Order: sequence, then structure tokens, then C-alpha cells
Amino acid sequence: MPIHNLDTLFMPGSVALIGASDREHSVGAVTLRNLRGGGFSGQLFLVNPQHETIDGRVAYHDIMSLPVAPELAVIAVRPDQVVGAVRDLGLRGTKAAVVITAGFSELGARGSELQREMLAAAVPHGLRIVGPNCIGVIVPGIGLNASFAQVMPPKGDIAFLSQSGAMVTSVLDWVQPRGIGFSHIVSLGDMADVDFGDLLEYLEADAATRAIALYVEGITNAGKFMAAARNAARRKPLLVLKVGRQTEGAKAAHSHTGALAGSDVVYDAAFRRAGMLRVETMPELFDGIETLALTSPVNGDRLAILTNGGGPGVIATDALVSAGGKLAELTPATLAAFDALLPPTWSHGNPVDIMGDAPAEHFAGALEALLRDERTDAVLVLNCPTALADPAQAARAVIETVASSTREGGTKNVFTTWLGEFLATPSRKLFAGARIATYETPEDAVQGFMHRVHYHRNQILLAEEAPPVACAGCDAALVRAVVERALAAGRQWLDPAEVARVLGAYGIPLLQSRFVADPAGAANAAGELGGGVALKIESPDITHKSDVGGVALNLAGPDRVRNEAVAMLERVRNALPQARIDGFVVQQMAPRSAALELIVGLSIDRVFGPVVLFGHGGTAVEFIADTTVELPPLNSALARAQMARTNVWRLLQGYRNSPPADLDAIADVLIRVGTLAADQPHISELDINPLLADARGVLAIDARIAVTTEARTAMALAPLPPD
Amino acid sequence: MPIHNLDTLFMPGSVALIGASDREHSVGAVTLRNLRGGGFSGQLFLVNPQHETIDGRVAYHDIMSLPVAPELAVIAVRPDQVVGAVRDLGLRGTKAAVVITAGFSELGARGSELQREMLAAAVPHGLRIVGPNCIGVIVPGIGLNASFAQVMPPKGDIAFLSQSGAMVTSVLDWVQPRGIGFSHIVSLGDMADVDFGDLLEYLEADAATRAIALYVEGITNAGKFMAAARNAARRKPLLVLKVGRQTEGAKAAHSHTGALAGSDVVYDAAFRRAGMLRVETMPELFDGIETLALTSPVNGDRLAILTNGGGPGVIATDALVSAGGKLAELTPATLAAFDALLPPTWSHGNPVDIMGDAPAEHFAGALEALLRDERTDAVLVLNCPTALADPAQAARAVIETVASSTREGGTKNVFTTWLGEFLATPSRKLFAGARIATYETPEDAVQGFMHRVHYHRNQILLAEEAPPVACAGCDAALVRAVVERALAAGRQWLDPAEVARVLGAYGIPLLQSRFVADPAGAANAAGELGGGVALKIESPDITHKSDVGGVALNLAGPDRVRNEAVAMLERVRNALPQARIDGFVVQQMAPRSAALELIVGLSIDRVFGPVVLFGHGGTAVEFIADTTVELPPLNSALARAQMARTNVWRLLQGYRNSPPADLDAIADVLIRVGTLAADQPHISELDINPLLADARGVLAIDARIAVTTEARTAMALAPLPPD
Repeated sequence: MPIHNLDTLFMPGSVALIGASDREHSVGAVTLRNLRGGGFSGQLFLVNPQHETIDGRVAYHDIMSLPVAPELAVIAVRPDQVVGAVRDLGLRGTKAAVVITAGFSELGARGSELQREMLAAAVPHGLRIVGPNCIGVIVPGIGLNASFAQVMPPKGDIAFLSQSGAMVTSVLDWVQPRGIGFSHIVSLGDMADVDFGDLLEYLEADAATRAIALYVEGITNAGKFMAAARNAARRKPLLVLKVGRQTEGAKAAHSHTGALAGSDVVYDAAFRRAGMLRVETMPELFDGIETLALTSPVNGDRLAILTNGGGPGVIATDALVSAGGKLAELTPATLAAFDALLPPTWSHGNPVDIMGDAPAEHFAGALEALLRDERTDAVLVLNCPTALADPAQAARAVIETVASSTREGGTKNVFTTWLGEFLATPSRKLFAGARIATYETPEDAVQGFMHRVHYHRNQILLAEEAPPVACAGCDAALVRAVVERALAAGRQWLDPAEVARVLGAYGIPLLQSRFVADPAGAANAAGELGGGVALKIESPDITHKSDVGGVALNLAGPDRVRNEAVAMLERVRNALPQARIDGFVVQQMAPRSAALELIVGLSIDRVFGPVVLFGHGGTAVEFIADTTVELPPLNSALARAQMARTNVWRLLQGYRNSPPADLDAIADVLIRVGTLAADQPHISELDINPLLADARGVLAIDARIAVTTEARTAMALAPLPPD
Repeated sequence: MPIHNLDTLFMPGSVALIGASDREHSVGAVTLRNLRGGGFSGQLFLVNPQHETIDGRVAYHDIMSLPVAPELAVIAVRPDQVVGAVRDLGLRGTKAAVVITAGFSELGARGSELQREMLAAAVPHGLRIVGPNCIGVIVPGIGLNASFAQVMPPKGDIAFLSQSGAMVTSVLDWVQPRGIGFSHIVSLGDMADVDFGDLLEYLEADAATRAIALYVEGITNAGKFMAAARNAARRKPLLVLKVGRQTEGAKAAHSHTGALAGSDVVYDAAFRRAGMLRVETMPELFDGIETLALTSPVNGDRLAILTNGGGPGVIATDALVSAGGKLAELTPATLAAFDALLPPTWSHGNPVDIMGDAPAEHFAGALEALLRDERTDAVLVLNCPTALADPAQAARAVIETVASSTREGGTKNVFTTWLGEFLATPSRKLFAGARIATYETPEDAVQGFMHRVHYHRNQILLAEEAPPVACAGCDAALVRAVVERALAAGRQWLDPAEVARVLGAYGIPLLQSRFVADPAGAANAAGELGGGVALKIESPDITHKSDVGGVALNLAGPDRVRNEAVAMLERVRNALPQARIDGFVVQQMAPRSAALELIVGLSIDRVFGPVVLFGHGGTAVEFIADTTVELPPLNSALARAQMARTNVWRLLQGYRNSPPADLDAIADVLIRVGTLAADQPHISELDINPLLADARGVLAIDARIAVTTEARTAMALAPLPPD
């Protein structure tokens, strides 16, 4: 199903350039040159109130004078003229506009107001807007270059979506000598209307697009984004460079686009959940685009490395193992083939070092054997320049071997690195011409292979994703009532009894405690709870209870508790005569001294909404800094995957004499907290710390819950059926 | 002081090529072409028994027939002919030889034997050998190209030392279009004789060498290496790429060079201790060489970023902050200058975004202002290609601005990145011509800046290094006696009483314990120790004491201990009638329940000798995996720096209600263990785990010590005086 009017944006029959110009180097002139030079076969109209003709073509005085309504408009006028232009286009019935003009939300309050007016003028007419503050849209397949970019890429099957126009021009300049083509290039600018979610939804269904690369500074409309990204990632690889990782970086991104930047770890969780490949650097994005363009999906993580130099083979191995890939183990047949082909000094293993003086025939023969080896999923060929053999001959031998393997139905990817630059450049051009992925260094090539491996792993994970476990016996209505009462009383934090009821309603085991008014009540509560108990004074005025003798531990039996309560009341009244005393809390003693202390939490991210936190807990939780977040809803597989990303996970497996903790019980708490997040839009924060965990199960010792009148919507992340 | 005969290697008056050839693409022919084509002005002799002339020059039948003894010989004959050639050269009085021939230690036992014979033939004559199994030596300053590399670099001030010949040819090919020159290039091969330590010692004193880059697979003779590296790093930056980080990588490196690979974390510690800059990847090494060649030292970590595109500015900021650098805060004067120069849409902060249509004058003016800003230590200029302005004009403006700043005495480094490739390449060539450092991406440029920052920080650290604290009151003789006795008894592990004496002799506080023979002795010991004690059965046959009732905790008073000892003896005899029972251990109870559990250890690395380990301890130490190593001897600054590299360091600072631990006491233990390592060559392993630490000090609870008859020498790492 095509997204509302985006088909008009990407396949217009006619285009009008509002603000066409012939002033050299002006945006209006460069855009006109691009529109005329791209090969677009539809009608092109120019609008400019000052000129009768521009560059030899008729210029219309205004939009209303155009002979027909253009299907797509490109707007490059002054900021104060944009709203009028959008209104006129809407009236004429135009359904898509690219607003190149800058000076909107990125400039603060006045600009934001202008942006609102622009949208208000567009929405009633169903006019979709890309931008403002962008460099435009390019669709090479129909020769549409509605941008002021410096170069037009050839047609290809990659879409590139970028919040930064500078990244668009940089990528275009980088791919130009490599002959890499694109299906769509969209500079999104301030994303007043058309955003990543819209475009991903459109491109998911677009048969001409085989892979999508994104440059992201901040996501708006996270629900739409996640739904579209998850669907698209099932069908094609999504590569994303998200900047603003560091606080100072986030500030710069904020000042740049006016978008609210969410926390980077939540972005990480969201991208992972959507099955996207996150890259960390610009070179990785560049190389990733090459990988997507020139390789096909892999089915495993076993790489064979073929090299004429030992050192670079070691470097590639380091990079492969660091990144979680595997060195392929060669079959006896392959080893025998190498013994027959190569001099006795060859490395007799993987990396396959065929020595510095290896002639082109050895590259060809060795590559052929590796492509036939069923224990190898892909091959990396490395060439070090040498005076003893011609690197370009070796490149040609590799190209011929790959071509003949492809003719015979082979589908294994071959990644190449011809090291150096002077002698290497001609070989790189040969590979580009043969559409074989080539990289400047062994590390870059291994990263390319690992991008394919990670995409393959993502697919497996998404397919295995079971439906969320229902929250057996959860009582959402009870919790809503508790929360409403607290909000009605103007409170931000639930009191201990309320916290206990919330956790109880969602089946999260909590150390039992009773709030009682007096020593007699404390004695009764001790009888009910049984075993040793702790007794604590309850007062809104006392923060450090033990400092005033307001805490007693390990009291056995009702009588002992009653006597201690009487004594405690006296101690506290003597110490703090003014303090209001509400009563006592009687609490079971935590029974598990050898258990691990975990933290499970729920908080609300500004961009992505509720996130479930898990990690190593205790009083030093911020210092241990071993936590990870995941977007709810969770199921058992997702909860386990989340737990496995922490260091405490290794301790939970059992160590020395400690048996493994009850991992199912921990996962169950995470799932239930995720359900709570979905059910209870007024709970703004929840912290269970510590959650004790050992072989017998879990037990929450302490918890706090904050509520807010401002409800937020939880994101729908339904499990995806296999594609 | 020049290293023994290395001046002959690098500045020979005459060279002989043993194994000269005219067979195309053979090593002998390529090396001959290189020797003739490099511009070497000394005499060149050829030796080949089969030909009268080669390539129009006289070929001598053998070394003995040469008219004079060559100062340097290059050997490219069959492996079985090498020993004879070396012997003849030695007899003639040649002092340096480069053995290109492969087939020695990298091929196993037979090759190693040949290598020993070769050395035996060389040593009596003081003949130094580079290689075998290398591509040779290049000294551009005297036109000496004694290698079979494919290209000769120009003269420059960087030395490149590489254990891999393939890395040499790759680096040469990479720098060729960049016009980067070298003072020395040495392919070390199997390092039978001349190794990194020799070369660093020589190059430290070489005025023509301003910086040194190393490619390392494994270090031999670590003591010499460390001494030379530390001295050299005081005078010039040392950049090192050490491969074999991963286990599989280490295996490949091992199979490749025959060198023993030490543990990678110890290499890390050694490089850090030597003040070297370790790089992780080949691109980082390549770019690092460019940085060293084209920039000068920096005095701070504040970077200003000048860009015509917002996105790449954010990317640079992310990279800078991740790497520990700082965004410069601009002075009001600079901000005012920008307001006067730039359109109102400029970013009004750092990164300084001068907008996509910025003309060359804006690059020039903004850069000039930043070079004048006293709060900025260096400037990164980014250019994104655009159709609105010419990138090459911007590059020329930057080059002119830098030139005029240099003329006025400015020394601030300018790093540049012209993004893309098609439009960017001409600008990159302009920068290369002007000797301004230029990188393909913002991340690479930031990394270049950070290499300079880290070198600057290393210098500060080395200068602040105080002399090691003497081990106050340590009794080395006592420990030697304990160790000797254990070794004489054929034991590998010291018994608990011996461990207590060793720690006591080095002033490391240990939980007190007494070994006693019977219940009466246990009662006496309990009286001596005072307070609560633990009682444990002592038997060589019982591993799990508590399983047979052989452990009792928290016993107060001699009587209670005597009674319990009697009962324990009976329990254990009933449970294990065959077990030999030596007596009891009576131990103080560990008094500090809130203390942190640390681990302090000593172990012997195969390459670097003793290393001191520090980290988060306890029974789960392997799972927590929070440890770090350092080479002894330590002082307070080094011990603190080591501690600060762990996560537990943050907990040691105090958190919530826990006061900071006694950091001096912990550092003191590390220093003392380091002294022990130096004093006691027969101690092969020591583990204190846990070492309890809190605000009151430290206390070792458990420790074990292994000894060995095979003594090892501790490395001398004397503090370095300021240069």
C-alpha cells in the first residue's frame, strides 16, 4: 500500500520550480540546472515573479498562473514567501512539495511558528512536504534531480535518507568514482511533515529498492518509525548512522536541526529491536553502502582469508574475531588442493598465505578452491603490493574466477582489499568495474562481511520472536485505581503499601511488609508474616531512620516485636519530638544472603516512550554502571537477550560454588514490568532495587514508583510473522 | 652513543649484493634494480657464481673474490647458502648484513637450527644481521634501497620498522601519492639478531628521525626493548600497531613469524609504560604516519571545528568527545569576529558551522580567527562538497591562511577533511602539496589530533613519574630463605604459614592465623589472637573442609575453641578415617563486612616478565573480569593510574553512604608486590584475593604463592629524568 501521496513525490508527471533563478551559484539556478540535466521526461514549469523567461524557458509570474497544477513542486524562495507558495499549491491541487528554503524550526521560536503556518496551509489539501531546510530529492530511475546537489548519481537499488544535506553531498561525491547507484536520495531537512517513518513505509514496498541507508540526528514520531523500520528490515537491510552519541554531540545535533535528541542507549535499543544495522562512523556508513550495493546476503559467519602477505592476514583475523565472526576451517579437500597448487611454504591453514611472490594463477586457483569449500561462507582476498608480481594481474584473476563461479551458479560473496594506493588504485578500479566489493584495508573488508553476518543474524532473531507472554493473573484495574487515587491526592510517588499492591497485582514477588499504626498492630503483623522481621518507624519527617533508632532487625515473635515497638517509639520521640509519626512498617527479613542484587526498572524516554531497564543492582548501581535497556513489550527470548548484554549475566550463570540463578524468574519480572508499562500510562517511573536473585527465584526487596497526570502512549511492537 | 655497528648498516660506504640476478621478477634482480636506482653514491659489488656480468656490471664469483670487504652485504641466496655467505662476510670484516632469504625459524626446527648456525658464524666477527625472511632496508637520505620493495619513498623524517614485509610494501604504496617521506624503513623479518630494541636505541639518537612507527607481531628481548622504547618516546613520538590481539590472531601471528606471542593486555601495559601510542588498526597506522609527518606537537586537548555542514560537525564532535578530547570554548573576541564575518545563520558556537554556501573568504576569515583564539589548541577544517561554492577554492583559502599564520610565527596544527572523493580529490592533492595533514573523514582527522594529544599527555606523565618508593622495612632475605626451603622440599606452593611470613616480610597486612597441632594449642592461639576466631581442620587429604564439619566460625574465647576443636577432630575422623590430620588453623574473623573485595596479584608474562595485577576480587573474579596489569616497579602515581583503569575504582571513591576506601593503603600493597617481584626471582605467582579495602585500610584475607626453581630476571624500569 503506497503511503499517502508519496508516489506523487517520487513519480511525478510534472514538476514546478518555485523560485527558479539564473543567478549563478544561487540555489534556484543550481536546482534548475539539475532538474533540466537529470533526464526527467515529464513537464517542467518555472515560477519567478521578476522574469518572463529564465535560461530560455517561460517563467510564470506565480503559481496561480501555471497552465496546469504541477504534481510536484520544488520551493526555493525566501522563508517569508514559503507559506503563500504552499497555500497556492494546495489550492491548485498539487500533492507533493520539496521545500529547500531554510529558516524554519532550526532558527527557534519565530521559525517554528512559520513552520506551523506552512503545515496548516498544506494539510487541508493533502499536500505532503519534504523539508524545509533540505537539499532536495533525487530519483535517478526517472531522471528526477529535484535538488541543488553537485552531482547526479546513476540509477541503482539503494535508497539513502539523510537528515543532513551535507551528508548527502558527501556520500554522492564519495560514490561517484565507484559507480554506485541509488534508487532514491532524500534530504529530509527539518522533517516538518515527511519523516523517516513515512519514507521507510514507502520504500519497504518499493521493488526497485534493495537496501536503505539512513543518516539520523533525531527521530520524530517514534511509533510510526519503529513500525515502518521493523517491517522494512524484514525485507531489506537497513543501515543507520545515528549521530549525537556524546552529550556535546547531542547538543550540536540539537542546535543543528531543532529535533529533540533522545538518549543514545535508547536509540541503540530501538535500532536493535527494529533489526537495523547501526554503524558508528562515517567511513563505516560509506563502506556499508558499498557492501549493500555489491554483495548478496550471507548464510553464515565463517570467513576464509586469502592473502599474499602474512601481516595483513593477521590483521584481518584480529578484526574478524573481535567483531564476532569466525575463521572458516578448511576441508581436507581444500587443503589438498592447496598442497597441489602452492609452494610448500604456504601457511597450511586459514588465513591462506600464498606468499609474497604469488602469481595471478595462485590467486585464481586458491580462490576457486575456497569458493567450492562448503565450510566457508565467504572469502576475503588480500593483496599486498610487491615487485615480484603484478597486483593488477592478481585482481584480474580474481575477477575472472568470481565471474566463472557466478556463471556456475555460485552465490558466495567475495570481499577484496588491495593494500596501498599507488599500485592499488588501478586494481580498485577493476573491481569497481566488475561490481566486486573492494575496501582500502583488511579491517574495512571484514566489517563489510560482518554487516552481512549481522543482517543474517537479525533475520533469524526476528523470525524466532515468539508472541509476548500474557501477564498471567495481572490485575490492571486494581493498579489503575491505586494510581488514580495517588494522582487525585496530588502525589508524585506511591507510598510503600501502594507499591506493594502494584507489584502484587503484576505478580512480582516482593518482600512482605505491613504498615501498622501501633505496637499492638506490629505484634499482629509479626505473627502473620512469621519468622524473623524488621521493624521500622514510619514518618514523613524522618529520612535517616537508623540515625534516630528507628530501625530494628531480626526480631522473632510478636512479643519481642511489641516490646521493641514501644521502646522505639520512645527513642524516636526523645530524639525528634516534632516529628509526625504515622506508625510502623513490619517487614520480613531478606532471606537470601548469597543472592545477587539486580535492578529492574521502567522509565520514559522522550522519544521512544517506556523502556525497561535491567542490570547489576545494589546501592552502588550508578557506579557499577552495568545496565541495559529494551523497549517493551518483552517476551522470554527478548528478556533473555537483554539480560545477556550485561556483565552480571555471567554471574547469573553460576560460578564457583554458586549455582545458576533462576533465569526464567528474572525474565518473567522483566516481561511483567513491560506489560505494566503498556497497561499503565500514568506510571512514569519504577525502580526495583535490589531484586534478589538466586537458584530458588527472585524477590524484590525495595521498590519505588512515580506517577504522572500526563499519560503517554506505549508503542505497539507486535511480533512480526515470518516474511 | 651509536649501537654496535648499526651505523654501518644505515650509512655504509659500500654495498655487496650476494645473489644478484638478472632473472626478471626474481628477488635478486629486483633488489639489484633497487640498489642501482636509489641514488646510492657508494660502491656496489655483485656476487653470483654463475655469471661474469649481470645487467652490464661485473659479477664476482664469491665473497672471497671481492676486491674489498663491503661495509654492508645484502644476501638473497638459497637458505642453505646463507650460513656460508655470512661466514665469508665475517672473515672479510663486513659488519652488517641484510638477509632477505626466507626459510629459517618461521619453518620450524630445521629452519631454527640453520638460524643458529648463521648467528654462530656472524657473532665472532661482530657482524650484525637484519632478517632473515625480510624485504630489506631503505635509507632514502643516502639513496640506499637495499630491498625488493616495489617503490622507493622520498627522504623524510619518519622511521618505519616492521616485522611484516607486506606491511612495508603496503605502507610505501599508500604514502606514495601523498608525498610522505621516510628517514629509515626496516623490514625486520625473523629478528634473529637486530631487533626493535636495537633499532629504537639507534633511532632515538638519530637527528634525522622525528617520529617512529612500528608494526609489531611479537617482542623478543623485552628488557632491551622497554629501555630503548622509553628513552626514544621521551624524544619523539612512537606509534605502534601490534597485531595478534585475538587468540586466533595470535595463532596466525605465531605461525607466521615463529615469535612467541605474549598476552595482549601485557603488551598494552608495556606500550603504555613506555609512553608509546598504540593504534588498533591499519588505517589508524596509515593516518598516524600522516599525522606525525605533517603536524607538530600540541600543547592541549581543545579542538575548534570549522565546517560548512552541520552533520559532519556533529560527527567530529562525537568522535572528539568519545576519544577524550574537548571542544574548545571560543573567546568573546572570536565570536564577535564571526558575527561580523558570517551570515546570521552561523552556528554561534563550536563546531563553527559557516553554512553550505560559504565562500572561500569565509573559510579563510574563520580559520584566521580560530588560529588567533588562545582557548583553541588546534583547528579541524571540514568541507562538504556543494554546488554553491568550489571546494578547491576553499582548500586554497585554507592553505593560504595557514601559510600566512606560519609566517607570523603561528604553530597551531590545522587538520583538514574534504569529504567525498570526486570533488574532494583535487583538494586533497592541494593539501598534500602544501604539507597540511588531510584525512578522508572527520573521525580520522579527530583521531590524528588525539594522537598528538595523547603524545602530549604521555610526556606529562613520564615527567611526573616519581622514583619508586622503597619498600620500607621489607625483609627480602627472610623471604628468600622461605622460598629456598620450599624449593628444597620440592614444593611448588607455599603453605599458609609461609604465605603469612612472606606477606608479613613485605608489610602487607594479612588476616592473622596460627597453625597449631591440637585443641590445647588452638585454645592458646585463640587467646593470643583475641576476639572471635575461625577454626579450620588442617589436612593434606581434605579439600572441602566444611563438607566434613572441618570449619567453625565466630568462636569467642579459648575454652569455646578448645571444646570445638575436640568435637571437630571427632567429626572429621568419623567422616574420613583415612585422612592424615596435621592440626588446626585458628584465624581471626574478617572484621569488615562493608569492605570492597579486591584482588592483587603477581604473575610472570612469557615476554615481559613479572606483571602486577589489580582488580575487583572475590570468588567471582573471573566472571567480573575487572582487572588490569602493570609492569613493576611501581610508585604511587603508577599504582593509582593502574587502579583508575578498573571499574571498581569508582566504588573505591566512595558511593552513597560508603566513605572512600584508603587508596594510599591499596596503592602501597601494589607497590610492595612490585618490589617483591623485583626482589624474589623464584616467586612465580602470587594471588591476594580477597584484599578487603575500606576507609580504615586494607586487609588480605586469603593469599597463595607459587615458587619455581627457574629464576627470571625482573626488568629494570628506572624512572626517567626530564629530557
